[in-house]
Amino acid sequence: MNTFGRLFRITTFGESHGAGIGVVIDGMPGDVPISVEEIQSALRRRRPGQSAYTSPRNEPDAVQVLSGLYEGRTLGSPLTLWIPNTDARPTDYAEIAQVFRPSHADFTYALKYRHTDPRGGGRSSARETAARVAAGAVALQLLRFLHPSIKILSWTSRIGPFETNYIPTTADEIEGSPIRCPDAEVSAQITAYLAQLIEEGDTAGGIISTQVEGLPGGWGEPIYDKLHARLAYAMLSINAAKGFEIGMGFTSAFMRGSEHNDAFTIGSSGEVRPLTNYAGGVLGGISTGEPLYFRVAFKPIATLRRPQRTVTRTGEEVTFTAKGRHDPSAIPRAVPVVEAMTAIVLADFALIARSGTVHNQ
Amino acid sequence: MNTFGRLFRITTFGESHGAGIGVVIDGMPGDVPISVEEIQSALRRRRPGQSAYTSPRNEPDAVQVLSGLYEGRTLGSPLTLWIPNTDARPTDYAEIAQVFRPSHADFTYALKYRHTDPRGGGRSSARETAARVAAGAVALQLLRFLHPSIKILSWTSRIGPFETNYIPTTADEIEGSPIRCPDAEVSAQITAYLAQLIEEGDTAGGIISTQVEGLPGGWGEPIYDKLHARLAYAMLSINAAKGFEIGMGFTSAFMRGSEHNDAFTIGSSGEVRPLTNYAGGVLGGISTGEPLYFRVAFKPIATLRRPQRTVTRTGEEVTFTAKGRHDPSAIPRAVPVVEAMTAIVLADFALIARSGTVHNQ
Amino acid sequence: MNTFGRLFRITTFGESHGAGIGVVIDGMPGDVPISVEEIQSALRRRRPGQSAYTSPRNEPDAVQVLSGLYEGRTLGSPLTLWIPNTDARPTDYAEIAQVFRPSHADFTYALKYRHTDPRGGGRSSARETAARVAAGAVALQLLRFLHPSIKILSWTSRIGPFETNYIPTTADEIEGSPIRCPDAEVSAQITAYLAQLIEEGDTAGGIISTQVEGLPGGWGEPIYDKLHARLAYAMLSINAAKGFEIGMGFTSAFMRGSEHNDAFTIGSSGEVRPLTNYAGGVLGGISTGEPLYFRVAFKPIATLRRPQRTVTRTGEEVTFTAKGRHDPSAIPRAVPVVEAMTAIVLADFALIARSGTVHNQ
Amino acid sequence: MNTFGRLFRITTFGESHGAGIGVVIDGMPGDVPISVEEIQSALRRRRPGQSAYTSPRNEPDAVQVLSGLYEGRTLGSPLTLWIPNTDARPTDYAEIAQVFRPSHADFTYALKYRHTDPRGGGRSSARETAARVAAGAVALQLLRFLHPSIKILSWTSRIGPFETNYIPTTADEIEGSPIRCPDAEVSAQITAYLAQLIEEGDTAGGIISTQVEGLPGGWGEPIYDKLHARLAYAMLSINAAKGFEIGMGFTSAFMRGSEHNDAFTIGSSGEVRPLTNYAGGVLGGISTGEPLYFRVAFKPIATLRRPQRTVTRTGEEVTFTAKGRHDPSAIPRAVPVVEAMTAIVLADFALIARSGTVHNQ
Repeated sequence: MNTFGRLFRITTFGESHGAGIGVVIDGMPGDVPISVEEIQSALRRRRPGQSAYTSPRNEPDAVQVLSGLYEGRTLGSPLTLWIPNTDARPTDYAEIAQVFRPSHADFTYALKYRHTDPRGGGRSSARETAARVAAGAVALQLLRFLHPSIKILSWTSRIGPFETNYIPTTADEIEGSPIRCPDAEVSAQITAYLAQLIEEGDTAGGIISTQVEGLPGGWGEPIYDKLHARLAYAMLSINAAKGFEIGMGFTSAFMRGSEHNDAFTIGSSGEVRPLTNYAGGVLGGISTGEPLYFRVAFKPIATLRRPQRTVTRTGEEVTFTAKGRHDPSAIPRAVPVVEAMTAIVLADFALIARSGTVHNQ
Repeated sequence: MNTFGRLFRITTFGESHGAGIGVVIDGMPGDVPISVEEIQSALRRRRPGQSAYTSPRNEPDAVQVLSGLYEGRTLGSPLTLWIPNTDARPTDYAEIAQVFRPSHADFTYALKYRHTDPRGGGRSSARETAARVAAGAVALQLLRFLHPSIKILSWTSRIGPFETNYIPTTADEIEGSPIRCPDAEVSAQITAYLAQLIEEGDTAGGIISTQVEGLPGGWGEPIYDKLHARLAYAMLSINAAKGFEIGMGFTSAFMRGSEHNDAFTIGSSGEVRPLTNYAGGVLGGISTGEPLYFRVAFKPIATLRRPQRTVTRTGEEVTFTAKGRHDPSAIPRAVPVVEAMTAIVLADFALIARSGTVHNQ
Repeated sequence: MNTFGRLFRITTFGESHGAGIGVVIDGMPGDVPISVEEIQSALRRRRPGQSAYTSPRNEPDAVQVLSGLYEGRTLGSPLTLWIPNTDARPTDYAEIAQVFRPSHADFTYALKYRHTDPRGGGRSSARETAARVAAGAVALQLLRFLHPSIKILSWTSRIGPFETNYIPTTADEIEGSPIRCPDAEVSAQITAYLAQLIEEGDTAGGIISTQVEGLPGGWGEPIYDKLHARLAYAMLSINAAKGFEIGMGFTSAFMRGSEHNDAFTIGSSGEVRPLTNYAGGVLGGISTGEPLYFRVAFKPIATLRRPQRTVTRTGEEVTFTAKGRHDPSAIPRAVPVVEAMTAIVLADFALIARSGTVHNQ
Repeated sequence: MNTFGRLFRITTFGESHGAGIGVVIDGMPGDVPISVEEIQSALRRRRPGQSAYTSPRNEPDAVQVLSGLYEGRTLGSPLTLWIPNTDARPTDYAEIAQVFRPSHADFTYALKYRHTDPRGGGRSSARETAARVAAGAVALQLLRFLHPSIKILSWTSRIGPFETNYIPTTADEIEGSPIRCPDAEVSAQITAYLAQLIEEGDTAGGIISTQVEGLPGGWGEPIYDKLHARLAYAMLSINAAKGFEIGMGFTSAFMRGSEHNDAFTIGSSGEVRPLTNYAGGVLGGISTGEPLYFRVAFKPIATLRRPQRTVTRTGEEVTFTAKGRHDPSAIPRAVPVVEAMTAIVLADFALIARSGTVHNQ
């Protein structure tokens, strides 16, 4: 099940140490302008080696268009993007051919598929997210073509013990921080914390927040394809994601109805709108027209430069220490991935919303 | 999109004030024993009016089998269950024909579908969950037929300010509490708290925890249909659900890799297993064979017996106070719904796992 | 797999000797007028006992709306229709509990599902087509709401040795014939032939032709969901259907390119259109705007009032003679079924076409 | 909708004059041996320039594996195949940038997608079938791994006026003929006929027959995913296919029940089997265990080296004559495509059949 989406559908493929990573985007309408440079930019944001705080695997991540685009506009046929692997160094991974790395998918992949590529994490590697980011950049351009009002921002709101509640309004606020945290003070705290983790050979989890502005009301397909149910599905499919919440999320569990309810009022142009937005932009699984707001929790990266207890594939108990340099946190690089999956989910709903619009409005 | 599942697929239908609620279950293999009494029992657990703490709408929720079953065994054709509405009192709802109830889906349904049933919440009502519970009871019986080892338990772990970390091992521990909280002390606290909320015309959110034991390893379909991604999708489709987390979930965001990683060891029968289970039973989206553990957060019920600010469907600002008695919390009645959706997701994976098992094992 | 369609989706359920037959129609937009009387009319056309030439099982086929409709307009929730079985006479079927009827699905259902209802054909019975006809009547009303120009006509073009090439332009021409053949002379020949078959206890196959006028150009989703590929899929799912052809179909296999090609010209309003329509209204799987024309072949009804060689479920060779009266041909009653499946396929494409229409046109 | 299949799913991409043609195969179980050489062989059978009777576009069709395979065995991740275009000569196609070629998809693609690649047929070109053939070679290897008994043979049974009823039993009988007709006499007639058509600048349609032996009973998923309904769907998605029939197909429309019915008997090992196989291997949409037999009709190739009346994209009436050499018939090269789609449909059912097998057998 490497396909996601109903009308706007992505099918990703490729492993960390194979020839490369790719995605087929099906359901693209014809004659929509798509800039490959914008896809390349998005990939640049995700790729390793951007700063001291991300891993030094140095991939140019140069995207190639295999199909679906001619002279900058879509043909209506599947749009296929391909990103060759150029810095896959199997020698780094010699040891993982032998052991099940703790909290990695080595164990479950071996259990399920029996045959694995000893050179690396294969399909379970975070390298796969490059395809999501590329597809997300296409989804974003389709969304912009259809609904120029939509603006998606994702950012680091927590790493380890440091958290911000600040909600940015521009991408620059986010990209201005080396760890994509728009709150300068918290960004500095996290940056120092990550330096310390590198020192200690340890890693940290965190939270990525997303806000979408300008979303039309009426998107979402109850009962099962509620807008936030599809978002949760998309987000939990990202490597290392362990939680999703919309609006007040887990905090709403602590609230009373009289605190949590969003009272309706009449807006300045005579439209109905809620006074507050504790709901996070959805009611009954359908967008209200208010900003969509949700958060995704990630576990710490499992690869540690510290000795850990584990077993070999042949059943021997050993101590394993990861070699080389590794990210102390996946969060900064996962920000564009969350953004991409958001765009992919919304592009799908955008097409579905058109199909259901049968009245002149 | 009222269908959920890939091989084991449920399609639910019906509104709160229509003729009834139903579900078509497709993908049932033939010749599987299904007890209708067990479905009826499950519905009894969900239905209103069970205690002072749930709403007094008094539905017998008597299930009828419309198709797919003959003399207690499945025919392989769609198994259809139908639960007539018998206590739908439209007069209780006269006022909601006029106003958009705060934090209800009245507003978004009117926006999206234009035409609504003035007699009640319609498709967005929690009454729809009866169909999920009925389907879940079938899924559970299929699971038991295929994998007798699987045991699913869901329970109230928080309502308002009261929370327990206790993990029960039997259904009796849960059902022994009027609010389905297996920790006697917390159960008493919550019970008192709900009484107070009824007094105050207010409501509370909460958290439902689920643990699944005896799950085989190897279930889950990366990249997008990870086991926990499908669970998140299913859980967020439930009315009032606002968050999902697996394993340590949002807490993992606060942890270091050295704390969170589950070291592998050799179990007593020589099998590979993790020493701890912070992952919650999945790695890379595939079950490890350890207990599956996840939590779902619910917002407080939106219907309050207190005046709230809102607007009418014709755009007039008014104050609205819900009449009649209403649940102070959805959590106790949502426990069987979470359990049902868990069974539905797992039955689907059980069938998919068989299709992928191509080696003699 | 009892669901058909992508955005406009039907899920049918029910067996010939169970409680009834039903269908859940998902994907209906809200606020679309649907006449239940029109559904009932369509069912009346399909039901048995209409003339001497159809079987005397006498079902009123009274349709009930279980969900999705309020005061004559759709709610956007699943529209569920239910047709109780009232004339299921198990005693007629006592013998089929014992034998595998030749060319019936008794054998393969027993092989696949192991457990069958001894009272009749169950899910494989043509009774299931009542649900298709009911759903088709809804699809037709949706199509008419969206595209009033579309007109679907299906008719008997062959039974046994008698065939007509006449293409009718009104439903009256078809319904004026007791066997739904719009060519009066051929209709009379067939009628006489069927009387003779009844006499002889034999049955005949035939062909149903369909023409759709007023279809917009641009419908169809290459590469796999070509308009005619979906039609073939739908038609071959009907009981006893053994062949499908579009345009010149099998005859095109005998033609030269210079005969078969449809030259383009400029129409009276300046539009591009083909001079001929050998293609049957599609090119590359996409509608051209010309009439859609296709034919479906059906095998003879397998139930004969003649002794036939067969075996019992316990493996004994026996001679079996069907009791009671049976249709000499399924064709007249299958005409509304073909028409219904056509409407269902087109309603689905109508919604999909809207989703892909992203340019102002 | 460039994806076909439910559990074994292919997603094809690429256009005739883009970078190449590819396919992502999802749903492959892990650890299945796949020979790339066998894929290459299958492509060699399909590619142009094989004989005087096929077009001289000379593509090596060298397949590359982009993902999913490691040291000859599947990883369980998507298996992606890529066939670069190397002989796409846009100059040949200069004129088609201007006109709508009669009976080609130029017109409908322009109507639907608005933006097309002026260098050739793009996605609608038969070049796309290379991806199907590559995927089919994988499907066949999976089938062989799971069910060594299955043998699929497709062959030319008609071109223009010449037809054979002979059913071959080995691939050699088919491949021994330059036009893949196992009947030597008819093969010679067709070969002469094609030479004459080349002379005259004309083309011919034809029929491809397929027989599958060794298929297990019990495959097929009523009501909509009947085995032959999925086959019809797959076959009609092939370029130029205009008709499908199973068993006696359209001929069954001319038969009586007493002629067409397959009487059951007890086979030599005590098993139930039909004495004849007019049904073509399915009853009620489920395989009986007898050979599957079906036929697909193709229209003549639309490209003629003769003047034809048509219009330009700007609405001017012109006469168009195709330049260069072109196939006089698509049939010989379509034989491996039909075979491939058969394997793809059956591999999908093979996986689904496993999922439904819940009893020890």
